[in-house]
Amino acid sequence: MKIAIVYHSETGNTEKMAELVCAGCALVEGVEARCMPITAVDETYVVESRAVILGSPTYEGSCSWQMKRYLDAGAKGLAGKLGGVFASQNWPGGGGASFAEMTMIAGMLVRGMIIYSGGITKGQPYLHFGAVSRRAPEEELYRERCVKLGENIARKAVELFGDM
Amino acid sequence: MKIAIVYHSETGNTEKMAELVCAGCALVEGVEARCMPITAVDETYVVESRAVILGSPTYEGSCSWQMKRYLDAGAKGLAGKLGGVFASQNWPGGGGASFAEMTMIAGMLVRGMIIYSGGITKGQPYLHFGAVSRRAPEEELYRERCVKLGENIARKAVELFGDM
Amino acid sequence: MKIAIVYHSETGNTEKMAELVCAGCALVEGVEARCMPITAVDETYVVESRAVILGSPTYEGSCSWQMKRYLDAGAKGLAGKLGGVFASQNWPGGGGASFAEMTMIAGMLVRGMIIYSGGITKGQPYLHFGAVSRRAPEEELYRERCVKLGENIARKAVELFGDM
Amino acid sequence: MKIAIVYHSETGNTEKMAELVCAGCALVEGVEARCMPITAVDETYVVESRAVILGSPTYEGSCSWQMKRYLDAGAKGLAGKLGGVFASQNWPGGGGASFAEMTMIAGMLVRGMIIYSGGITKGQPYLHFGAVSRRAPEEELYRERCVKLGENIARKAVELFGDM
Repeated sequence: MKIAIVYHSETGNTEKMAELVCAGCALVEGVEARCMPITAVDETYVVESRAVILGSPTYEGSCSWQMKRYLDAGAKGLAGKLGGVFASQNWPGGGGASFAEMTMIAGMLVRGMIIYSGGITKGQPYLHFGAVSRRAPEEELYRERCVKLGENIARKAVELFGDM
Repeated sequence: MKIAIVYHSETGNTEKMAELVCAGCALVEGVEARCMPITAVDETYVVESRAVILGSPTYEGSCSWQMKRYLDAGAKGLAGKLGGVFASQNWPGGGGASFAEMTMIAGMLVRGMIIYSGGITKGQPYLHFGAVSRRAPEEELYRERCVKLGENIARKAVELFGDM
Repeated sequence: MKIAIVYHSETGNTEKMAELVCAGCALVEGVEARCMPITAVDETYVVESRAVILGSPTYEGSCSWQMKRYLDAGAKGLAGKLGGVFASQNWPGGGGASFAEMTMIAGMLVRGMIIYSGGITKGQPYLHFGAVSRRAPEEELYRERCVKLGENIARKAVELFGDM
Repeated sequence: MKIAIVYHSETGNTEKMAELVCAGCALVEGVEARCMPITAVDETYVVESRAVILGSPTYEGSCSWQMKRYLDAGAKGLAGKLGGVFASQNWPGGGGASFAEMTMIAGMLVRGMIIYSGGITKGQPYLHFGAVSRRAPEEELYRERCVKLGENIARKAVELFGDM
């Protein structure tokens, strides 16, 4: 089962999150995951994926305009897929990342996706709306969150779509 | 397969939405749906349900405090279930219902639910984050949205959980 | 006192809202208001303005990526100014316009603006987070909302900054 | 000039934030600030205040139902006042506090308030939508944010209303 992680990153922080999310997906048997920046999306791979996870830096309190442009104009084949989100911000809390996650979730719902994070039900670290990191995920907590998001989404995708 | 519609209603507007959402669920073969106000939730039924749909009036731009209290303190057994939302507002657009829907979705994600609406991918009327009505759903558009939300959630629940 | 209305419009719907917001501002003595699309912002005029009102269509449940790009990368001199918002959507409620308004408000707060709508305290039609219209503001309610937003922001700007 | 800080706190974390916000207000000459829990609001003082700052813990990704109840049913005399927000969460980022702040801001706009934080325009630490702390504000960053929010709101209130 394929899972696509589509991210926007200028400084490399969100890209590092994407790699950890990808590693988290790969912990689940039968799952193949691939990261791709929104400037080089492999549309065929996205269409073939059963889950798509979007990641963005937080700009002015919501997801970056580049990620918004992807959601508005570029994203193809998202309907019916499982969706998850992650966001970097420059501060430990209060930088708007939770709101940025909700902006992506809003667009993904409109596109017919099924949104999941696992929230506080899959053990610590808790995820709430998705995975958030202060800048690049260097501290253990932020690294674990990214891995957990990938793992939660991959396990849920296998559970929901494994027999299809 | 059981589906629970849990709503808060003071004027009866959101209750009428709930009944139409329930009727929409019942259009799908094999689905049993039941409406219940947050003051009289059948917890056993909720726990046995594969999908839970929450509905609230829009108060001060977000879901009512009564619905928020249910999400904060009362809701049991939501993890892993499919979730959907609906909201009434007093105005045709601009009354905050979309934001109210996102408040409920935020809480449902934290509780480990899988959120779905169908968005703009299941034909008209489009749903975006869920079903919105101006006051009681008397106009055809508002009635159809409620029914469609129920139907979309029920079909998706059968698709995802039908074999489990 | 100058007020700038900066909008993004592809179909012309949001542009028509902008013109009505502008007309509402002009109802207030001593106020000069000007509309400008984000593709042709008069930066000098914006900097000289005491209030800036932003308008966008609702795309995928939030403000358009073009408006987000303006907030992320283009907007200059917003700090300390009074801010207001308006949004068009394709549906009477439930199209995400309230959430789109909040996305703009998030960015405006980060940029140091002071946000105001008047909400439900300035008589009908009520505004909540700003002015919302279904497509172009053809129905009386939608037209009145746009005018009211302009008038509320202009009156508040004169009240707050009139002596400065 | 009076400023009221109205907060909800169960564990005492948000209360400690409130005290620091209050201390920040008191740094500004001519300002008298007072903290009060939503269970014991001094309504006369709130009505006499030119600014009201609301603080809440983050529950299930938005402000607590108790704070929502205050906004829905209890808050009096907020129209026309300057407003600010703060929120505690259990995690350094990703706990939903930014979204919780936006829930309060939504209600405050509906009630006719003028919302301000100062965002990233008043030096570090940046505030974005308001002040966020992980649990009680023990780390320097979180303490400074609370003080800065109070100071920003108080300075702006004096600037806007000082001559009235």
